[in-house]
Amino acid sequence: MSVELNDADESFITGLRDILPAAAFLEASDTFLTEPRGRYKGKGVVVAPDTTEQVAALVKACYDARVGIVPHGGGTGLVGAQVLTEGRIPVILSLSRMTKVREIYPEEGVMIADAGAVLADLQQAARDAGKMFALSLGSEGTARIGGLLSTNAGGLNVLRYGTARAQCLGLEVVTPEGEIWHGLTRLHKDNTGYDLRDIFIGAEGTLGVITGAALKLATIPAVEATALLAVESPAAALSLLSLSRDIVGEGVSGFELMSRVGFEFLMETGLLQASPLQPLPDWQVLLRIGLPAGADVEAVLEHIFTAASERGLVYDGLIATTLAEAERLWTIRETIPEGNRLIGSVASHDISLPLSRIPDFIPEAARRIHDVAPLRINCFGHLGDGNLHYNAFPRAGENRAIYEGIRSQISRIVHDLAVEMGGSFSAEHGVGRLKVGDVERYSDPVRLNMMRRIKAVLDPNGIMNPGAMLR
Amino acid sequence: MSVELNDADESFITGLRDILPAAAFLEASDTFLTEPRGRYKGKGVVVAPDTTEQVAALVKACYDARVGIVPHGGGTGLVGAQVLTEGRIPVILSLSRMTKVREIYPEEGVMIADAGAVLADLQQAARDAGKMFALSLGSEGTARIGGLLSTNAGGLNVLRYGTARAQCLGLEVVTPEGEIWHGLTRLHKDNTGYDLRDIFIGAEGTLGVITGAALKLATIPAVEATALLAVESPAAALSLLSLSRDIVGEGVSGFELMSRVGFEFLMETGLLQASPLQPLPDWQVLLRIGLPAGADVEAVLEHIFTAASERGLVYDGLIATTLAEAERLWTIRETIPEGNRLIGSVASHDISLPLSRIPDFIPEAARRIHDVAPLRINCFGHLGDGNLHYNAFPRAGENRAIYEGIRSQISRIVHDLAVEMGGSFSAEHGVGRLKVGDVERYSDPVRLNMMRRIKAVLDPNGIMNPGAMLR
Repeated sequence: MSVELNDADESFITGLRDILPAAAFLEASDTFLTEPRGRYKGKGVVVAPDTTEQVAALVKACYDARVGIVPHGGGTGLVGAQVLTEGRIPVILSLSRMTKVREIYPEEGVMIADAGAVLADLQQAARDAGKMFALSLGSEGTARIGGLLSTNAGGLNVLRYGTARAQCLGLEVVTPEGEIWHGLTRLHKDNTGYDLRDIFIGAEGTLGVITGAALKLATIPAVEATALLAVESPAAALSLLSLSRDIVGEGVSGFELMSRVGFEFLMETGLLQASPLQPLPDWQVLLRIGLPAGADVEAVLEHIFTAASERGLVYDGLIATTLAEAERLWTIRETIPEGNRLIGSVASHDISLPLSRIPDFIPEAARRIHDVAPLRINCFGHLGDGNLHYNAFPRAGENRAIYEGIRSQISRIVHDLAVEMGGSFSAEHGVGRLKVGDVERYSDPVRLNMMRRIKAVLDPNGIMNPGAMLR
Repeated sequence: MSVELNDADESFITGLRDILPAAAFLEASDTFLTEPRGRYKGKGVVVAPDTTEQVAALVKACYDARVGIVPHGGGTGLVGAQVLTEGRIPVILSLSRMTKVREIYPEEGVMIADAGAVLADLQQAARDAGKMFALSLGSEGTARIGGLLSTNAGGLNVLRYGTARAQCLGLEVVTPEGEIWHGLTRLHKDNTGYDLRDIFIGAEGTLGVITGAALKLATIPAVEATALLAVESPAAALSLLSLSRDIVGEGVSGFELMSRVGFEFLMETGLLQASPLQPLPDWQVLLRIGLPAGADVEAVLEHIFTAASERGLVYDGLIATTLAEAERLWTIRETIPEGNRLIGSVASHDISLPLSRIPDFIPEAARRIHDVAPLRINCFGHLGDGNLHYNAFPRAGENRAIYEGIRSQISRIVHDLAVEMGGSFSAEHGVGRLKVGDVERYSDPVRLNMMRRIKAVLDPNGIMNPGAMLR
């Protein structure tokens, strides 16, 4: 059933020059051909339209000529969805020239933006309007909203505000046949048919090209406070989460678990001088509370700290008393991936679990890995979302290259155990090209069959991001 | 391309008796053949399996024999999705014998239930576990969760907690070919493929049968307070909403607009003795705030009241000082539909609008209706969601029958204007059979084409709820 694709060759590109402005043709620089982990090197001809109509014309041309398209946002994805390494030469459709905030309605809590708008710019536009765009993650200075939606990105604010999916009211999409779906609704409720928005969100560019998005804006919490707390164990961290929520409900806006190893890496690589808590705890939680005006947020945090100490959940900690101190603590958390990068992981994982299975998962996964190799485990992440980054590293002084041969075995161990426990092998990073095999291995077969049918019927020529998500 | 269906005739039913227990065959009573507004009278053979495997066997038999299936939950839908009136005799697949809460995880905030569980029972199960299941609406004593999800029901708590979609983590679904998708995940994050969950939510039983759901449980707000406030206009009500959110953010958990006419109907029909506010205001807002422990919720409400009065947004009001008083106020709001029913509407509408268009919509729609007939308008609803129930009634002493000839003209006026202003002709009630023509008239054609393709590829024999949502 699958259709043969053709190369985006000279004659095809010459044809494109008739329908697109010269400025749309960009050099195929490393920006477009590499990805952050350096695992893949892509290929393709870079075309960057500056209107939705140009995107539609480009996609229509690719559809007619059966040329593959790799949509490209900020290029920050971690699973290779943005780089095609094999097969026919594709068009790399960059949204980098579509970056406008089109409209903003602060009183409605809605902002409409081009898919190429950078997340940090959207956050700033919201702040300028007295509101907050709640999506936030490490790559926010580079990642673009179309890619973030296509990945259904998570990040630091999911616990309170949800993933990218929950921040989106409507989409403008160019279909794989080059038509435009005008779905940029500002409505909070609209039950008039199948929910196509959510099919495109998280589809990683395999069903069409997101060109615009209507985004939800939230109220800026009037007062916020952050605490760094030492907990005995992941189980104690979960009890602390439950206790915090009983006290302040949705007011818990951040709840990150960090392991001793993560801090050791930061100090080993010079990214952190000293642990704020001494001696360095095995497990720490970074907790943020945001409350409405009038609330005494530090008193609430003290109350949580006291109640948690009385229950034996927390044995040390500090409350940031200034904004600068809070930012310093959050910077530590956000620097952990850079520490990991400098150490060099053998295998990285982005798993999720039912919350109550996490305390069993962490030691059991370590046990199974240590049966294979004496790796160091840095387990950290968005505990409140059940999402752990569970990464394996060589011992101090070793180079990760010596473990190259067991990389896939380690990942298999971690993913098998996560799925055994009702979890997922990809919580927020997506599938891309890295985890296509995992989709085939772990997906419910009935679900996989429905996915394949939807792909086939919405992208009949199979031109959209070939090889990503589904083979 | 469309396949001819067959009747669920004697010989087909005889075959079913071999694969299903005798108890599954129920009498086709009015419960299954009528709907709340009395506009449709359905037909069919009622079969009520009591396990997911039985549902799968039943659907497989229908698929093989090309017999239509109308899934039936609590039968409370308002657009006729639950009754098939023409064409071949279908199986009415009742979920009324699958009503269990399967599992509950209070510390994870997750509950897994059969699709036939009644909403009020789920709310109670959550409360018994110290949590809250936030979906709440007038029909909660009868409506079943499978139907509520298939409709993506809204109700009174959408502003804070979202629609049914936002309360659901995962689904178990029997596909139109009789296979089971085991998608009952407890995960809050899982980016491993297309979001099929959200395609089934709101599909009104046209893509498969929801047999089970994993539902989110929320923290019960520690303290709540309700105020009834007289506002000058819908515009003032919107400013009051914005002000309230600036002060307490997500703490605003209910924000209902009610018109003078709604209260007049309640008094005319004897459902209400007297207006709590005297003289009866043209427009009133029912506002509920829910806050974490320790917050002085009445003081916060007083603060909102004072600030709104200073800005000229509110000119009268009362704060409920007891739980009983608050419940009395909410009962008035929840009784408005019964008042409408007793008066007898000429045409009812469930529209949504971008929030800032509402103040223009209300008088303009009335003007256009009054060009046609001197009807009374009762406009009320979930203002915070942009969702209005905009219903037209005969003048006092008149019977609605005299306006039967202009019913569709009135609906056309209301829906045309809503869509002109960027709104929707169905905010929370769905499409069913009542609004299939509206879907064809108002939908973006590219979207409609994608919907039809998805329907065709997931339900190749066209047996699922024939004639609902799409013709």
